[in-house]
Amino acid sequence: MARQYHVAIAGATGAVGEEFRKLLEERPFPLASLRVLASERSKGKSLQFRGELIPVEVLGPESFEGCDIAFFSAGASRSREFGPAAVRSGAVVIDNSSAFRMDPEVPLVVPEINPEDIGSHKGIIANPNCSTIIALMAVAPLRQLGKLKRIVVSTYQAASGAGAQAMHELIEQTRRYLEGQPLQPEVFPHPIAFNLFSHNTPVGSDGYNDEERKMILESRKILHDESLRITATCIRVPVLRAHAESINVEFEGARPSVGAVRETLFHSPGIEVVDDVEHGRFPMPLDATGRDSVLVGRIREDASNDNAIEMFVCGDQILKGAALNGFQIAATLIERYAQ
Amino acid sequence: MARQYHVAIAGATGAVGEEFRKLLEERPFPLASLRVLASERSKGKSLQFRGELIPVEVLGPESFEGCDIAFFSAGASRSREFGPAAVRSGAVVIDNSSAFRMDPEVPLVVPEINPEDIGSHKGIIANPNCSTIIALMAVAPLRQLGKLKRIVVSTYQAASGAGAQAMHELIEQTRRYLEGQPLQPEVFPHPIAFNLFSHNTPVGSDGYNDEERKMILESRKILHDESLRITATCIRVPVLRAHAESINVEFEGARPSVGAVRETLFHSPGIEVVDDVEHGRFPMPLDATGRDSVLVGRIREDASNDNAIEMFVCGDQILKGAALNGFQIAATLIERYAQ
Repeated sequence: MARQYHVAIAGATGAVGEEFRKLLEERPFPLASLRVLASERSKGKSLQFRGELIPVEVLGPESFEGCDIAFFSAGASRSREFGPAAVRSGAVVIDNSSAFRMDPEVPLVVPEINPEDIGSHKGIIANPNCSTIIALMAVAPLRQLGKLKRIVVSTYQAASGAGAQAMHELIEQTRRYLEGQPLQPEVFPHPIAFNLFSHNTPVGSDGYNDEERKMILESRKILHDESLRITATCIRVPVLRAHAESINVEFEGARPSVGAVRETLFHSPGIEVVDDVEHGRFPMPLDATGRDSVLVGRIREDASNDNAIEMFVCGDQILKGAALNGFQIAATLIERYAQ
Repeated sequence: MARQYHVAIAGATGAVGEEFRKLLEERPFPLASLRVLASERSKGKSLQFRGELIPVEVLGPESFEGCDIAFFSAGASRSREFGPAAVRSGAVVIDNSSAFRMDPEVPLVVPEINPEDIGSHKGIIANPNCSTIIALMAVAPLRQLGKLKRIVVSTYQAASGAGAQAMHELIEQTRRYLEGQPLQPEVFPHPIAFNLFSHNTPVGSDGYNDEERKMILESRKILHDESLRITATCIRVPVLRAHAESINVEFEGARPSVGAVRETLFHSPGIEVVDDVEHGRFPMPLDATGRDSVLVGRIREDASNDNAIEMFVCGDQILKGAALNGFQIAATLIERYAQ
């Protein structure tokens, strides 16, 4: 009989933690047992799993005994505090936070792009930032068509990237707006209802905010190309769950044809080409929501640069942008490396 | 006594038409009389103006007798149908539609950028497309700092760009969404509540949609630079009134410093620099709404190109993106050319 795995979810009551639970429930996975961990606040709660109620345990250093795989999605400080303890308990940590992503000892993985990096893990494997994953899913396959020179990204990021409370704030604040009541931002620093704003991570001395910096540094690490030229402008928009991104890709040499880009993406795993000019159907958050694939469309030659192409992508932030990618890391780990 | 002008608004009941009326009511303007024109549908209506009710007249070829200035905002086909008649009646037409923008006989004007073009009019002066005006307000002043090489724009366009009915649809559809009712797009081809989508103008064989093509062609005309390299991705977002744009500007030579860009924009009319890193305050649609100025922030060196800078701008689509720009064209025309 094939081996089965004891799994824990740290941050099980959050938006991404819930999605991890749903994936383990609905998809094929050699699961022996599931432990759900969260902060003190969730003490006493229970969570549904395969028709049973599993009590939420308080996340602590002792939480991971006997655990094989631990999905972390409880914020960077919890990952830093309890990730190493989980590793010491013998678990492989798949961490959705930014805590270890740029650690040279920690592989940063999108399974469709750099699955081989999983093999070098020393106990922790990092899940990239959501907007980085969604952008690279569309960009990485284009390396088959020529060397990439420069990438310019502008994002349209859903509230889900800031967690379940942020999604709730978007809904409740919009309701208040429609009732003519004053808006009271709590999770976000600015009103999100019928508004948008520059991503609310701190801006450094170089003028980039942390979200943009993640996109730049993580892309280089995942693509193993420290010389990759990439810039990003990260914007939060009043959308619930799926991120969109406008991406300009310049090649070192002559650009591939639009047909070649479309063909390559069509055959790339985890990508769906949605580029129906006749019916005006292109990637949209509502269509990407709940879907595994990253949608890519508006593929065209850039009128301003003979070597560049433009495209517009959309992906579910909680799925491929977070939990699904982590789940796929676990599945790849099991398939390839754990016998 | 200074001359006073007989003015007509064609499309007076639309979102932009209403704003023209408000501007004529609230701002200094040598107005002799106002005529409000609309389609058959508005027959019998009256509109408030300076404490009086003005009856809406049905727009026709005879509507412009005795009229000096006619603001058109009733769609391109009405402009084509009735604009020439207004000119024959002796009026100068300031047209907010796309009908005449690319006509070589018609100046296309942003008064802060190319006011001198007004002088060459032959009866019609065109108001540029909203997203073009808002982008160029921030980009044009940078020509003082070096020759522009290439501009990459991604837009976040409010519902107002599609008119008052589209704004109404965003509100009502959002309400339905919150009540759990099915969404029924009517004005837009796709749901706009908590969603976004590629601008719903037709996509040509080059892969660009009409909105993007306007940005490219109109920018070249306004800046008198047919070789200007510019690309745009135009996206509709669930925001009511103000457009935002992520803009990457590459210079022919070495880029200016961020300080020089900020200083130049600070001294540019119609621009407000909102770039408060410390408090995380940057341009947002809610802040731009109802404001004359285009807000510019997130000004930074592009990490991917030594000659480029990035910025994020936001402007009221109905004001500077439409009615205010037209009103300023009229004011400039009167000041400079009509004695």
